[in-house]
Parts: sequence; C-alpha cells; structure tokens
Amino acid sequence: MLEQALQAARDQREQSQADLFELIRIPSVSALSEHDADCRRAAEWIAGRLTRAGMEVKLVDVPGEGSRHPVIAAEWTGAGPQAPTLAIYGHYDVQPPDPLEEWLSPPFEPSVRDGFVYARGSDDNKGQIACGIRAAELALAHGGPPVNLRFLIEGEEEVGGPSLPEFVKREAARLHTDYLLIADGQFTAPGLPNLLTGLRGLLYTEVEATGAAADLHSGIYGGVAPNPLNTLAHVISALKDRDGRITVPGFYDAVRKPEERELADWQRLPVTEDDQMQAMGVPALEGEAEFSPLERRWARPTLDVHGILGGFQGQGQKTVIPARAKAKISMRLVPDQDPDAIFDAFAEYVDSLSTPGVRVTARRLSSGRAVRTGTDHPGVEAAARAFESAYGGRPVLVREGGSIPVTVDFQEALRPHLLVTGFGLPGDALHSPNEKYSLDQYFRGIEMVLHLMENLRDAPRA
Amino acid sequence: MLEQALQAARDQREQSQADLFELIRIPSVSALSEHDADCRRAAEWIAGRLTRAGMEVKLVDVPGEGSRHPVIAAEWTGAGPQAPTLAIYGHYDVQPPDPLEEWLSPPFEPSVRDGFVYARGSDDNKGQIACGIRAAELALAHGGPPVNLRFLIEGEEEVGGPSLPEFVKREAARLHTDYLLIADGQFTAPGLPNLLTGLRGLLYTEVEATGAAADLHSGIYGGVAPNPLNTLAHVISALKDRDGRITVPGFYDAVRKPEERELADWQRLPVTEDDQMQAMGVPALEGEAEFSPLERRWARPTLDVHGILGGFQGQGQKTVIPARAKAKISMRLVPDQDPDAIFDAFAEYVDSLSTPGVRVTARRLSSGRAVRTGTDHPGVEAAARAFESAYGGRPVLVREGGSIPVTVDFQEALRPHLLVTGFGLPGDALHSPNEKYSLDQYFRGIEMVLHLMENLRDAPRA
Repeated sequence: MLEQALQAARDQREQSQADLFELIRIPSVSALSEHDADCRRAAEWIAGRLTRAGMEVKLVDVPGEGSRHPVIAAEWTGAGPQAPTLAIYGHYDVQPPDPLEEWLSPPFEPSVRDGFVYARGSDDNKGQIACGIRAAELALAHGGPPVNLRFLIEGEEEVGGPSLPEFVKREAARLHTDYLLIADGQFTAPGLPNLLTGLRGLLYTEVEATGAAADLHSGIYGGVAPNPLNTLAHVISALKDRDGRITVPGFYDAVRKPEERELADWQRLPVTEDDQMQAMGVPALEGEAEFSPLERRWARPTLDVHGILGGFQGQGQKTVIPARAKAKISMRLVPDQDPDAIFDAFAEYVDSLSTPGVRVTARRLSSGRAVRTGTDHPGVEAAARAFESAYGGRPVLVREGGSIPVTVDFQEALRPHLLVTGFGLPGDALHSPNEKYSLDQYFRGIEMVLHLMENLRDAPRA
Repeated sequence: MLEQALQAARDQREQSQADLFELIRIPSVSALSEHDADCRRAAEWIAGRLTRAGMEVKLVDVPGEGSRHPVIAAEWTGAGPQAPTLAIYGHYDVQPPDPLEEWLSPPFEPSVRDGFVYARGSDDNKGQIACGIRAAELALAHGGPPVNLRFLIEGEEEVGGPSLPEFVKREAARLHTDYLLIADGQFTAPGLPNLLTGLRGLLYTEVEATGAAADLHSGIYGGVAPNPLNTLAHVISALKDRDGRITVPGFYDAVRKPEERELADWQRLPVTEDDQMQAMGVPALEGEAEFSPLERRWARPTLDVHGILGGFQGQGQKTVIPARAKAKISMRLVPDQDPDAIFDAFAEYVDSLSTPGVRVTARRLSSGRAVRTGTDHPGVEAAARAFESAYGGRPVLVREGGSIPVTVDFQEALRPHLLVTGFGLPGDALHSPNEKYSLDQYFRGIEMVLHLMENLRDAPRA
C-alpha cells in the first residue's frame, strides 16, 4: 500500500489541510465546562473519520470521579493475528486561548502565514494527531497497512483527567499493543527529529515540622522556642549540598548510566551550556559539574523545594515563631530508581534531621517511576528510517526531564514498545498566544506515519 | 504630704474605684475609627482630672502622617527647680473587645467578681494609669509631692501610632524628666512585683535570593536550574546551628553579661524549665544549653525565621522552581549589640552564603537597640521600697525579651532613669475576652506611686 498511499498523501494535501482546519475550528477547551459540548464534538469528529476509514470505533465515557470527556478507542485488525499492532496516542483537547488580546488572528480560526497555521491546538495536539488519522485513512484506502492499527485518543490531557488512564487499566486485556506512537512533542531543531528514550519520574513530598502548640512571639520566647522554619532550613540544606549533589543516603545507588549511544547523541545536539543559561536567564548553572548539563536535566535525579508554608507570608514585619511549617519537596527520578525505596530513605533521613523540640515528618503526595523506552527495540530503527524517509534526517535520541504521565499508564497497563516523538518545531508557542504549526511538518508527518506502518511490517511482537 | 495622702487613699477607695470605672466605660478602641470620638473623650477625661488636680495640661494633636489620637502632656513644677521630676507614662487606648460572645459581662461595663473588675482596659492600661492619676490628685490635694510631676499619656499604644514618639522627639528640650515610671505590665507572681532592667532590641531583615529570570519547570530544568528556595535553606541553616548558636561572625562579641544581681534574682524566680515547656507546648527547649532558659529569653540574642515567600504556597503539588524567594529573618538584640554593626556583619555573611547561579542580598526592614534601664540608679531602690511599703514585697529584677518601642523613644529623647514595671497580675487576660484587674492591686498601686514620689524626694537628677 505504501507507494500508493504516499502518492495520495502528496496529491491530497489540500484535503489534509482542510481536515485539520475542520478539527481546529472546534474549540475543545477541556478546562472550561462551557466547552464540554465542543470537546464531545471534537471527539465525534475524530470518531467519524476513523469509522469512515474502516476502523471499529468506540466513544467511551469512562465512569468515575473526575471523568468528563470521552476516550476514543479505534481498532483495525485487518493485518491479521500474526501482524504486530501499532497504536497511536493523541489528545483532542486544547488549552484555553487566553490572553485573547495577544492573538494576531482568532485562536479557533486557522490562519496561514509563512507556511504556518496559527491556531490554538494547531501543534498541541490536533496537528500531530491529524498525521496519524490521515495516515490511517490513506493506508486503509489503499490496500490497508501491513500492521494492525489502534487509536487511543483522550480529551483530558490538558487537565490531567483520569479517563484514559482508567480506561487502559480497565481494558488492558483487550487493548494489546506492540508499538505505541506518542507524537505530542517537537523536533530538537528544524530538520532534526528526535525519539525519546526516557522520561524522569517524580516523587513529590511534603515535609512538616511541628514545634510549639501554638504560634509564639519571638520577643517572649525567642531563645528557647523551637522554630520549625529554622528546622526546615536545616533539613533542606542537609538534603542537597551547595554544589547540587543530593545527600540522602543511598539516593544514587540505583541510578543507571545512560547508554553510550544516547550520550553520543547528546554531545552532538546543537544545545550549548550558554544556550541553556540564556534560556533560563541565569549567570551560572547549578548541579553536578561532572555531568553535562543535558545529562543533568535528562538522566540525573534532582531534589527541589517548591514552596515553604508557615509563619508570616505578608508584606512588612511580624515576629511570629510558627507552631508548624511545611515544605513542598520533589525529586525527579531516573531509571532505575524505585520511588518506594527512595521515599523510605528520604523519610528516614528527614526524620533524623530534626532539631530539639521539633518533630519532622515526611509525607508522600505522589510518585511515579521514570520511564525508559529503550534505545534498541525494533521500533526505534523503524521510526528512525520513517523519519529519514519523510524528513530527510534521522532522529537523535533524547530524553525528557519531566514526566508524561500517560507513558507510565501505557507502560504499566499494555507494556508496548514506546515511540515518543513529535512533529512540531521549537517555537510553536504551545499553551501561548499565536500557537502555530508548520504545514510542511504536518504533510511530512503523515508520510512518516505511513512509512512507520510499512517499516513495522515484520517487526517482532512486543 | 505622704501620710495624709496615704490616709486619703485608704479613705477614698470608693472614689478611686468610681473614677476607674468612669474611665473604663469610655470605649476608647484606637484601632477602630468609629471609636475616634471615644478616644478623644477618654483623653479629655484624663486631661480634665489632671487639670482639676492642679496640673498644667495640654491635649496635643501631633501633626504628621498616621497620627490619630491626642497626646496628653501634663506638668506640675511646684516642687521647685532643684527637685527631681518624675514622669508617668500610660496609654488610654484599648484593644478591640472581640470576640464579644466570649465575654461573661459587657466589655465596657465594669463588673466586679471576686475582687477583680472585669472589663476591656481594666488592666491594660486604664487600671494602671489610674494609679498614677489618683496618686497625683491625692498628693497635690495634701501639700503637693516632693518631686515635680509630669504625665505623658498616649492613645496609640495598641496600634503602634507615631504621635507620642514624634511628640517627645520634637519637644524633648521642654520635657526634662529625671525618673520615668512606665507601669504597663504585670507582677511576676501574686505578691511578687518586678522591675524591668532590660528589654531586647530587634533587627528585622528580609533576605532575597534571585535565580533565573522567570519561574522554571523542575522537570525541564531541574538539575541545572538554581533554586532560590534551596539556596535560602543553605543560608538560613548557616546562620544558626542545630543547637541554637548563631554563627554570624562576631555576632556575640558585644553581648554584655547580665549583672550578678540580675542572675541571682532570675534564679529565685518561681519559673521552672518545665513551666516554660508547658507554656509553649513543646517537648524540649531550643537554644544555648549553657545559659538558663530565662537568660536565653532575656539576655541572649536570637535569630528566627518568620516566613519564607516564593514558589508554590497552595495545597497539593506544583513543580515550580521560583525565580526568586524571600525570607523574613529577625534578630533580638541585647546590650551592648549595635544594630548597625550586626546588620553589616549579617549582610556580608549572607552574601557569602549564596550558591552557584543565585544572588543573595539582605535588606534591613527596621532595627532598634536593646534597652538597659540599669540596676543601680537611685530610682531602683526608691521603687523597690515603694513596692515593699505598698505590697509588702520587694520587686525582683527581670527583663523583657521583646521590645517596648516607647522605652527606646523616651530613652533616646529624654534620657531619664527608667522604672518599667506594672500593677497587673499574671492571668489578667490582656487583649483577650474577660480582661480583669485586681482592685486590691489597684488600691495598693496608688499607694506605691505615692511612696515613690516620697522616696525620690532627695534623689539625684538624671
């Protein structure tokens, strides 16, 4: 099917563009309840397209607290039971468009300027999910792909909603997937696609220090009153040294070194230390000097305080010694750190750092382990060649310092080979006014997915 | 005059009580503008009494921003230019009475139960200033006291208003005072009066740590992003060690040891370490173990964090690395620490504690030096004997851990010998519902002031 489908993709670019614009015009803002009907309309639009393309489609309102927008689950098993299954993830919901006055053209009316379509959701994620939808349509219209297809598309990505995680957990047995394409990112630079080989996990804690039974006046009791804020400072300063090395016992024991192939790719990336300092607006970088800045951001664990609550938070002066104070402290975790083991070590260590008269306790607010997609499963080479065919360049292997919760949900429920990448470009202004998406990237993205289907033809099952 | 005035004081207790109740019934709440007229009424009531007693009285609306309630300045120079002058300080304003529902009797309707009068302001400070007013009336009615008299009474004590400080600074040359009685406190225990020999000063600072140009996401930049909150923890933990010893270079150099006479008195006080732990509700006291808890509270300097601003202060989780963060840090100072020198040492030290990529600066919000009233000026013995005559017990020498700003204002402007004490009892519930004041303490307080006038007859000028 490949050559015919590719030819059709090239011949029907106007149609591809018109389709994307139709989807963009539906203002499916998941955060705002007045757009609930629009979210459903976007879901129905996608479900209709996939149905007409020949897939078996379900629009699922997942029961449970917090679920608001339907999941689209589509399936085509025409490649037969021996063929591998490629699933494609995406989300049809978008960020709110505020501030409206900063848009140069209306956020839900696609406007093409200099080869980019400007609109909310044009990149994130409608323009990328449309690559998958169009590729499926074209493949199915031209003999069908050599792999089975599945779509798992949600409408709560921008609000962290529970529907899709709940759905894949519940239906895992019926959602067998060998390869999962998550295209919700950007190229590293124009002409330089990437594949994500890992994402850091997150352990988020709250450390509470409790001193006196009530707030005290520092004039009356200063000198004998335990001060939980001072104690928290002692605790926090003992967690990470001044050079950025974390001092929780055993913290680094399970950290896995990145593969040579990854490190080599990172060295080649067009991102200098100066670039990173400029991007942050800092005079110096923090952290472990023996690791490159990219390695520190992608493959080294961190510990950061996000806020300290308690006492006096206003303008001016107040001489309170608070009865209690809390610090929000999170750790970014890397393969193969175990969140449970890290939390236990953290909590025990924190407990040992209290000062006279103060009780210190750590509580886990959430945790998720790091994701390793692997650099050597057969999908990597299939995707690399697909990128090369469609864009003329092979992807670099990169990582993400943050977590993409859905990758964890998929990995835990379905254990597929993950292909985490993206068709956007740096500067697409996701979540900001004048979000944009390159039409050339879009058209090539459709071809990339077609090539990927073809390249996975004889790929082993996961 | 003494014997006659004392006799009159005893004979006219009903009159003294009626006078106090009249003053209490005026709801002179300085914090609430709807009571502005009441504050003026209270001032006029006192001014009228002192005028009728034979003093020259001015009701002064001090010009300047924030001034709201008049100062009463009264003078009687009948003892002649060679005689010392005793000034009496007090304030006619009171705290708001909320929460009203917790009062067992109306807050501005004096109610006598078990020898106590219950009302807002009964102790703080109307019942104590009334001792001075009644004593002046009785002394002037019976031949006049052997010392010249002055009253300096304000209506902004409970709101930290500027009128009185401004007035004494401006009129210093015309307000010569040898001895100044400030009765706005409580006995150490029933039967155990006290004299304050020192008050700690206060240096209040804000330490700001600045990292990136904007808030950063810890997933993306964690590992290389300077985190001002972590840096502040390093700074704060380096200012005071885990045992409560302040580590700012030179911080203790100028600290003056309390006098033997003071230390001996503190040892005799009926206040155990357990009492103090119970009062605060803590399992252990913080601080320098080689000093007694009272010495730590009264004669040792402190360093406390009152609040840390910046980053995420809400419920739940957010993974921000804030661009900047601030800590409110104050130091209680003791004789003879110089606030300027301490701030300079603090700021220089703080600056040296920054971490890579973070700029740390300290700013002084306010400062005031500690007050030493002295243990050996002639007023101390005069007051001690006056207490003994009126109450049957000599006062202990104590200190106050907090500052009473007016003492600094008086000391800087007038340089008098200070007699800082009080006629209330522990448990009088100042600032709380059901504030009360012992009528016996009141009647004896009038006699104490009469004795004090007599005892100062031949006291040297300040």
